[in-house]
Amino acid sequence: MKDFFTVTPLEEVFEYISSFPVVSDENIPVTEATGRILAQDIKAKEDIPGFARSTMDGYAVCASSTYGASEGNPAYLTLTGAIAMGKKSPDSISPGNAIRISTGGMLPDGADSVVMLEYVTEIDDTTLEVYKSVAPGGNVIIKGEDVHEGQTLVEAGIKIRPQEIGLLAALGKDRVDVYKKPVIGILSTGDEIVPIQATPGPAQVRDINSYSLFSQIINSGGLAVSYGIIKDDYQALFEKCTLAVKNSDMIVISGGSSVGTRDLTIDVLNALNNSRILVHGIPMSPGKPTILAKAGNKPVWGLPGHVTSAMVVFDRVVRPFVEHAGGKDLLKNRNQPYILAKISRNLSSAQGRIDFVRVRLKKSDNVLWAEPILGKSGLINTMVQADGLIEIDMNTEGLNKGTEVSVIPI
Amino acid sequence: MKDFFTVTPLEEVFEYISSFPVVSDENIPVTEATGRILAQDIKAKEDIPGFARSTMDGYAVCASSTYGASEGNPAYLTLTGAIAMGKKSPDSISPGNAIRISTGGMLPDGADSVVMLEYVTEIDDTTLEVYKSVAPGGNVIIKGEDVHEGQTLVEAGIKIRPQEIGLLAALGKDRVDVYKKPVIGILSTGDEIVPIQATPGPAQVRDINSYSLFSQIINSGGLAVSYGIIKDDYQALFEKCTLAVKNSDMIVISGGSSVGTRDLTIDVLNALNNSRILVHGIPMSPGKPTILAKAGNKPVWGLPGHVTSAMVVFDRVVRPFVEHAGGKDLLKNRNQPYILAKISRNLSSAQGRIDFVRVRLKKSDNVLWAEPILGKSGLINTMVQADGLIEIDMNTEGLNKGTEVSVIPI
Repeated sequence: MKDFFTVTPLEEVFEYISSFPVVSDENIPVTEATGRILAQDIKAKEDIPGFARSTMDGYAVCASSTYGASEGNPAYLTLTGAIAMGKKSPDSISPGNAIRISTGGMLPDGADSVVMLEYVTEIDDTTLEVYKSVAPGGNVIIKGEDVHEGQTLVEAGIKIRPQEIGLLAALGKDRVDVYKKPVIGILSTGDEIVPIQATPGPAQVRDINSYSLFSQIINSGGLAVSYGIIKDDYQALFEKCTLAVKNSDMIVISGGSSVGTRDLTIDVLNALNNSRILVHGIPMSPGKPTILAKAGNKPVWGLPGHVTSAMVVFDRVVRPFVEHAGGKDLLKNRNQPYILAKISRNLSSAQGRIDFVRVRLKKSDNVLWAEPILGKSGLINTMVQADGLIEIDMNTEGLNKGTEVSVIPI
Repeated sequence: MKDFFTVTPLEEVFEYISSFPVVSDENIPVTEATGRILAQDIKAKEDIPGFARSTMDGYAVCASSTYGASEGNPAYLTLTGAIAMGKKSPDSISPGNAIRISTGGMLPDGADSVVMLEYVTEIDDTTLEVYKSVAPGGNVIIKGEDVHEGQTLVEAGIKIRPQEIGLLAALGKDRVDVYKKPVIGILSTGDEIVPIQATPGPAQVRDINSYSLFSQIINSGGLAVSYGIIKDDYQALFEKCTLAVKNSDMIVISGGSSVGTRDLTIDVLNALNNSRILVHGIPMSPGKPTILAKAGNKPVWGLPGHVTSAMVVFDRVVRPFVEHAGGKDLLKNRNQPYILAKISRNLSSAQGRIDFVRVRLKKSDNVLWAEPILGKSGLINTMVQADGLIEIDMNTEGLNKGTEVSVIPI
């Protein structure tokens, strides 16, 4: 049965995200975990640091021994020695005494603060002149100040950055549980498509989409697996789709911008085991003919065949599905960085759909301009020239030259 | 000889970038090239597409046959057949004729445009009623419209995105020349540092910096090689540095925030073969005690030992050096995306230095606030809590609550 072609607004498409499953996890070395998605909370089983440390070069003291000290009225303390790095001092400090300490050194028992080198003169081997008072805790990181035992520091679902790697190292973890990379199968359809290694005959074109999608999947944290080029043939497409669904967490089919191929794709998606069409058309440009089906519990996308349309739909629509499948908590990773610029010309836009316009950034007269790249959505070079996309929402008829826009890097 | 401690403004530090060499290149499969740096210009050796293609489902015609056609006054054309996808039509079109064509199909000889399906009715097998005129070139991508032969499409030095991968596929290139990843050696110094697998004894701490820097190097496009933990000993550090310089394109030494260790690092850097100190101190916070030396033609960094300082200096200062070494053209990749927010409290800042303040983003009352994370620069957890950095320049004394700031994601 062919579904009736009713478009689904983008925010309703996104409501399907959470209905799809998340992949399982694996345990990997921290040195390989950069950019992966954390699969369990990071909790501290110990205090960090495990002891009070000096943050400065200076002298460990009892703060009270320095109260009132100034240039004109220094305090005089007894210097009892120096603390070696990485060693606990056998001596303890009592009021009136001081001991030399370096940045990162462990405070001796009895000391509660460090007077900075700059405010001290060693009069002789045992006498210290102090010109400035220090408060208790001054120039010290106390035990557990960075991390305290039992604290949950990072929650599962975040993308691991260098600082999380550092935190894991601090906690002594050289391995970490992360979500596996979701396996995304790519199918490219069309009688006119030939492998990129081939010289296209008349009327033939190379298979661009399998490669640009491959790269986008990698950038989204997925593992791309290409199922090659499938002719516009129901049985061939059905069989390859069935295989791809079985072996993948999600599949993307590209090609089929013609009505005939689109119908073929819909027929195959409907026929897959335990399948239904969730979305058939999204009010966006480019990308209106996008299809989303659910086969078993897996998302199957029918992307437009035009290279630019397929790329924009992947970036703006499919990507969060890939990220969700890969365990990323989309609410905890929600701030999309962008570049502010001014639109360089008037731009019209149809109401009732979201427009994603490719733009090139150009600085002139100290203004950063976003220049719309006009060109048909079949042209890969328009994406190559683009630095980013601007989104013109459903209710905006267009933008006037000079309007400030947020350019989403692509 | 110890150099006099004169700080070098950040922009002068950056002037050294171009004085360092770039790594050599290698040829890799396009499927592995995402995020790598292109080492040669991409030039087109052919037109893409190689023939005029329809961008719509419809009928290939001579535009002149449709002139004046309207709902009230349709044009009648003779339908001569249909064009198969991927095949050149044996028929040519003359005025008065039309041939069915799908999106992506090759225009037959004689046709110059495509009338969309929506504006046509097939009266019978050979008669077509056309309700709307089309201009020459309408709904057609002409030969070479995407890419024309001889055109330089992308210049060496850019970071390869999915669209460049797509372009390479379009041009039939399944391999591409990219710069090798620069090898960055990491040395961690300090008598108090123990491997992360160890349980630190009293006064000891785990080697965080080797891991956070490892991850930052990966994110900067480098290949990180850890040379382990070196005791605060001249001979040991000299030997390990000499080895690391020999085997790497750049080295970063972390640790040594105490005056003694810093002096040791300086002594070793001065003693390296054919070496000189370029930078000894940068007016920035955190990160003032940063050292840059040139050993032979390789950059050698002495980073502060505090974890946060080391990370901020790497991100804001060292990273462009790594990118340059890796072949990235910093002028062609210059727009740093950010997130606009308002600072949540008054923030003071010393004049005469650049402050990089860690901030957490929080939405409330529909405003995105950047909350400064206050905490000593020895605390890794302050970086974990941070969503980004804001930069307060040399000449700004501070920011008032509500001031708009650009948050650089970290």
